Amino acid sequence: MKRFVDMIHTKKLGGELSETEINEMIQGYCDGSIPDYQMSAMLMAICFTGLTDRELTAMTLAMRDSGSVNDLSPISGIKVDKHSTGGVGDKTTLIIGPIAAACKIPVAKMSGRGLGFTGGTVDKLESIPGFRTDLSITEFFQAVRSAGICLNGQTDDLAPADKRIYALRDVTGTVESIPLIAASIMSKKLASGSDKILLDVTTGSGAFIKDYGQSLELAKKMVTIGTNAGKETVAQLTSMEEPLGFAIGNNLEVKEAIAALHGEGPDDLMTVCYTLAAHMISLGKEIPFEQAECEARTALENGTAWETFMAMVKQQGGDTACMENPDKLPCAPIRADYRAEKDGYIAHMDTEGLGITAGILGAGRSKKEDAIDGSAGIVLHHKLGAHVCKGDKLATLHTSKEALANAGMQKLRSCYTISDEPPAPAALIQDVVR
Amino acid sequence: MKRFVDMIHTKKLGGELSETEINEMIQGYCDGSIPDYQMSAMLMAICFTGLTDRELTAMTLAMRDSGSVNDLSPISGIKVDKHSTGGVGDKTTLIIGPIAAACKIPVAKMSGRGLGFTGGTVDKLESIPGFRTDLSITEFFQAVRSAGICLNGQTDDLAPADKRIYALRDVTGTVESIPLIAASIMSKKLASGSDKILLDVTTGSGAFIKDYGQSLELAKKMVTIGTNAGKETVAQLTSMEEPLGFAIGNNLEVKEAIAALHGEGPDDLMTVCYTLAAHMISLGKEIPFEQAECEARTALENGTAWETFMAMVKQQGGDTACMENPDKLPCAPIRADYRAEKDGYIAHMDTEGLGITAGILGAGRSKKEDAIDGSAGIVLHHKLGAHVCKGDKLATLHTSKEALANAGMQKLRSCYTISDEPPAPAALIQDVVR
Repeated sequence: MKRFVDMIHTKKLGGELSETEINEMIQGYCDGSIPDYQMSAMLMAICFTGLTDRELTAMTLAMRDSGSVNDLSPISGIKVDKHSTGGVGDKTTLIIGPIAAACKIPVAKMSGRGLGFTGGTVDKLESIPGFRTDLSITEFFQAVRSAGICLNGQTDDLAPADKRIYALRDVTGTVESIPLIAASIMSKKLASGSDKILLDVTTGSGAFIKDYGQSLELAKKMVTIGTNAGKETVAQLTSMEEPLGFAIGNNLEVKEAIAALHGEGPDDLMTVCYTLAAHMISLGKEIPFEQAECEARTALENGTAWETFMAMVKQQGGDTACMENPDKLPCAPIRADYRAEKDGYIAHMDTEGLGITAGILGAGRSKKEDAIDGSAGIVLHHKLGAHVCKGDKLATLHTSKEALANAGMQKLRSCYTISDEPPAPAALIQDVVR
Repeated sequence: MKRFVDMIHTKKLGGELSETEINEMIQGYCDGSIPDYQMSAMLMAICFTGLTDRELTAMTLAMRDSGSVNDLSPISGIKVDKHSTGGVGDKTTLIIGPIAAACKIPVAKMSGRGLGFTGGTVDKLESIPGFRTDLSITEFFQAVRSAGICLNGQTDDLAPADKRIYALRDVTGTVESIPLIAASIMSKKLASGSDKILLDVTTGSGAFIKDYGQSLELAKKMVTIGTNAGKETVAQLTSMEEPLGFAIGNNLEVKEAIAALHGEGPDDLMTVCYTLAAHMISLGKEIPFEQAECEARTALENGTAWETFMAMVKQQGGDTACMENPDKLPCAPIRADYRAEKDGYIAHMDTEGLGITAGILGAGRSKKEDAIDGSAGIVLHHKLGAHVCKGDKLATLHTSKEALANAGMQKLRSCYTISDEPPAPAALIQDVVR
């Protein structure tokens, strides 16, 4: 057996490791026989020399197999998992899930809580009074069978190797690596047990990866891994140069999702939702994309998507009255308006900065233990490219403490660029990789 | 204060760290506040993005200052340290030291035992019966004052940061990095307390760095560090495509050194010794190189270098009778000849392979605790480029066990390439950097 230091050296020189060596690496790191200091050197070498598709697939599968792999076979039909690499104001799962389920695609989704400025899907759902995301596996299957959909929390033993490796990357400057990001995401997706995988890879100022070329590379790598693992995988590249829709923050996003399910969603949000839902339905029913998109629109327009959403909320213990009348959802006590400081077009939005602002207001967490303020967040009044006049309301901050409002306002100010010229128009859906 | 993970990230992206940050890094690693797993990631990033001259100097000085720095001021005159990056059959210190001392350059040298196929200077000296290399600092100064020269062992607390970092590099695939090698060597040289530094940077099949371009880069980096640290530094690039002289192994090399001090040294060994001695004398007396070379030759030819060698051996407790009659030195009980397998020219010698062979025979150590067989080694009968006939003796192995002779012979066989064409002639002294 090759010593691990020799494997590091091989990667440092840009050579390829065998599948066996990759397995030894992941297993050895998990069982402690490979120490942190060797693994971090290996990860840094990978940041520079990359991983071949063969290595990448082997590493992802080894990470998947480091814990339990969900068995969704008790649910009949083709299960399609949907995953986003993260965006600001991204409430698509709350809309797409019900649409797909209304179109008879079984939606058996387990979401991570994760870290982030604005909370994950589970946090958004938990901002609905009473909504449970800790269903047992029996309850989970029962819910999917009965309502056609269940959006549940994720168990902690999914791909534990990824957790350990990510924690090490976080403190060794090795987070930014396309293959390591791809392996991390896909190890969890493959462990989640779905039959097919739909990826929403965001790109731009609000995305984790801002450069388009790198986002495309990430999408391609993940599709390669999924395909090599025997799961049909489709990746949509979505522009994230502004928040999706107008609402940022858990409760505020739930309200916007409810409006969307009533056909009153903002254009950009609906465009992304329809295309993602169409991909999901196309994968699940094995029908052409155009036909699937038609079904998605119909399910929304004829109200079945909304009915499915309500069935899900009821099934998972959520307050359906609140859903019927979203004004009953908890509201933040403090609101502060940010107004345009001059006339002009909104030429640029630092979308990540808006996410950070929402986090400052209480919508996200920086440590796993942090509590989230479900009602905190931002409501935008204008989208990118809008012409505004000095004094016009651009955004309203929602929070529970005056100090947070002030801190959020200070951050928010740096996020807007008002110019005499409007920004060049850009496509929202940039590409699809399959 | 910047978090260390941010410093790693800066280096990963090819940025420059400040002197303060470099100091925090070395101090933090030594005091344990920076863990191994972060340091190894940093070292791997440096392997890829390098260090600027400013960073390199700061790192070397921080490593120097991690332990005690020798104070050689009790010895009057300009002290010049000589260091080789390692070669096979390199007994130059035993010859240059006495030559320089005979020319009134104070030679107050502390050598490391180190690891290696064929032992370091201290091991060669200790193969002389009675020779002490563990003189106290008082004895050391006394010896230099009285004999003009003392070749002593090195204390263990010189640049402890280098020891810790090297141990980590050894297990994380980060040994091969020109700036890290330069910092490692120079931190110890600067801690050794001499006024000026002469470096013999070997290059070719017997050197640690085989590529000429990389060897030149290493020489330049080390000269830059020395100069920035306020010590005049000269580096000679010496070809190591074959062993220096004919003898490899501690005792065998002492014999060859004695012959050389009698004016009977092989041409290549003498060429290297005269140029290195001339640099040392030129640096120490601040006279032109040509004049210094003249003095070096005179010291050897008129016997004063030999007398100085004998005074040093006597001073350090060595058996002078053995030196007068080297046949009295311990001999290996087993000898085995390796003979040419066909007619032709010796076109290539795997010089590192010859060093490894000598190690197999007992001349070196792979662990610090290993014992060395002072009489083990190889005597060559022909140099690179010689025309030999099938059956001619090429080399004689000296060892203490039949099994070692067999293992050594097997390795030795792979080291020779006999061809119909002679090798292209190459300069022994390739360049001088100052």
